[in-house]
Amino acid sequence: MSPLQARQLRDETPGCQSGIVHFNHAGASLPSQATLDAIIEQLQREARDGPMEASEHGAVLVEKARRAAEQLLNAPAASIAFASSGSTAWNMAFQALGPWQPGDRILVGRHEWGGNLASMHVAVQAGARVEVIPCDATGAVCPLALESMIDARVKLINLTWLPANGGLINPAQAIGAVAKRHGIPYFIDAGQAVGQIPVDVQALHCDVLKSAGRKHLRGPRGTALLYVRPDFLRHLNPAQRDVFSAPWTADGFDLRNDARRFETSEASFALLAGLGNALQEINRLGIEQVWERILLTSERIREGLRRIPGVALHDLGTHQSGLIAFNLAGWDAFEVKRRLGVQRINIGANGVAYTPLDMQARGLASIARISVSPLNNDEDIARLLTALKALRD
Amino acid sequence: MSPLQARQLRDETPGCQSGIVHFNHAGASLPSQATLDAIIEQLQREARDGPMEASEHGAVLVEKARRAAEQLLNAPAASIAFASSGSTAWNMAFQALGPWQPGDRILVGRHEWGGNLASMHVAVQAGARVEVIPCDATGAVCPLALESMIDARVKLINLTWLPANGGLINPAQAIGAVAKRHGIPYFIDAGQAVGQIPVDVQALHCDVLKSAGRKHLRGPRGTALLYVRPDFLRHLNPAQRDVFSAPWTADGFDLRNDARRFETSEASFALLAGLGNALQEINRLGIEQVWERILLTSERIREGLRRIPGVALHDLGTHQSGLIAFNLAGWDAFEVKRRLGVQRINIGANGVAYTPLDMQARGLASIARISVSPLNNDEDIARLLTALKALRD
Repeated sequence: MSPLQARQLRDETPGCQSGIVHFNHAGASLPSQATLDAIIEQLQREARDGPMEASEHGAVLVEKARRAAEQLLNAPAASIAFASSGSTAWNMAFQALGPWQPGDRILVGRHEWGGNLASMHVAVQAGARVEVIPCDATGAVCPLALESMIDARVKLINLTWLPANGGLINPAQAIGAVAKRHGIPYFIDAGQAVGQIPVDVQALHCDVLKSAGRKHLRGPRGTALLYVRPDFLRHLNPAQRDVFSAPWTADGFDLRNDARRFETSEASFALLAGLGNALQEINRLGIEQVWERILLTSERIREGLRRIPGVALHDLGTHQSGLIAFNLAGWDAFEVKRRLGVQRINIGANGVAYTPLDMQARGLASIARISVSPLNNDEDIARLLTALKALRD
Repeated sequence: MSPLQARQLRDETPGCQSGIVHFNHAGASLPSQATLDAIIEQLQREARDGPMEASEHGAVLVEKARRAAEQLLNAPAASIAFASSGSTAWNMAFQALGPWQPGDRILVGRHEWGGNLASMHVAVQAGARVEVIPCDATGAVCPLALESMIDARVKLINLTWLPANGGLINPAQAIGAVAKRHGIPYFIDAGQAVGQIPVDVQALHCDVLKSAGRKHLRGPRGTALLYVRPDFLRHLNPAQRDVFSAPWTADGFDLRNDARRFETSEASFALLAGLGNALQEINRLGIEQVWERILLTSERIREGLRRIPGVALHDLGTHQSGLIAFNLAGWDAFEVKRRLGVQRINIGANGVAYTPLDMQARGLASIARISVSPLNNDEDIARLLTALKALRD
């Protein structure tokens, strides 16, 4: 990304003009003015013409968003559904794999998102077991270990690709190769991946992949997307159905034969119009450029952090993402976040609850988290590192 | 409602200043400028300060919305959850009644919403039966007939209170009395009731009640609310859980002990801020006044329609709501809607799919639908009736 492009990105983003330094893109990133405008325009259209009367225009915007998502993920047509929350989207697909039987095995990485683990209780109550795939020496989910666990009772491999609590990038493609070889359903929670790193659902060999809209995609809160491999649809029997996903016909209720069997008749077309604009912006920029700039910025920050006495970095894996986990000796992570917030520097802090298996395995009670976007510039980095040094002094 | 109040309502509503005549409030109503502003302000706050950083302010707005919903429904504290769609909200509560057993009986009115029927397939696949409670001579669900159907295998009574395809007001309170006497779970789909007629969840003796936000409440698309009676929570085991509804604690995942066990960690606080403003507006106006004006307006429209040759009214029941179903001899209902739409007069038209059992029982293929709000004035009524007369001539 050229310096000019990077400056233009910031110029077009209200949150880069408001005096804050934002390093919480993994919590939620800053939308562009054009994305805000797309939402507000549809809201105003609905208020002016009638919300249902404006839905024809809204539906066109939603289909543009779908095309943009397909392009970004190299997903075939009709394989993307939109939802109001990533957890809801993942949950709908997970429940649709049921009913679960005693002895069914669900294999997860140690870094699994807490919300997904919480929703697996239905399977566990039915007698299924959730088992953790061992990590390799770097702390990443190990495809070889996975291979040795496979038997006929494994009903799902579920991977949180980029965990919420650090820079680890799990080997999603190598895990997909194991899943494919054995014909086992493979779900990817890509909440921290989509919009940050290049994602090719066909190369990953995944059956289901979900992402929030508000994180690296820079879409609005209350949006998410779900990829479902078209040939996998016949294995998914959604519990939730409505007049859109399973419309009544003379023969009864007719479940849609594409990913929209996971959509609902009611949705905010305004928010989805915003998500669509955000997706188009990333496609225009090019995800490779975005990823390259995130790598450069996060490497500079990691270098800076290593020079601050008392900073311990907590990123696993060999190659790392723009999520940087650390602790500062003598400081609680949430207090670090709060102190920086007072200076209008936004970072994140996570306790055990979001990634409980990994945090417990590593004996971590909490981590502070810096997360990077192409929006961040040299001044942001300098302000962040200076503020952290000052805390230490 | 005084003429001054009625005029002020219109002055504060962009859709009443844009030249349209809106009689599709049962599809979605027109928000006030203040409701639009509340949404846009939170969106801008998120863009300026960071979306997660603005969530503290957003959470305050959501709690105001919850208080306003409790006030409107006479609901106890902590009994309201927000969702992104009424069908989703209802579905979550319905699935949480499971697992279903062979022989379980689900009793519904003939006017049941198609989306709810579609989602009952999970119960049906498990061997439950969906049975229709007979109607009385006026076409309303008959509490006496219900009483005679009760046995130990009835696991749920589900009522669509005000059906989507006409002015019927089902006797929700009398049905609640039967449900209460026998200790049977009682769910009400109040999508067309909340914001139109006075609703008292305690008088209704219902365990669960849901409504969309976009209809008579005049909230934004992509919002809904779910009431769950606090003492009924222990019977509801939600399949969907996440880091908000069931946060991880040292003892495992801890399901919330209030209606928020049906909420998700991710939501649009901006849309909920808008819904909150809309709820406060209705509370300030007073639902009794709103309902009184809807009754007056809809009675005048029904009188006008009766004077147009070839108009057949299709409203069931003795006392009717502001939803007016009709057909015009020689005209397809969807074509009536389209022709009026060209003149910027918005009405609705429904086929069989939304209320399949009732439409089939009555041999109706479609109905045109006028739905009324306190926003509608004399000029609206005159333009509507003139346009329909012109179609007939």
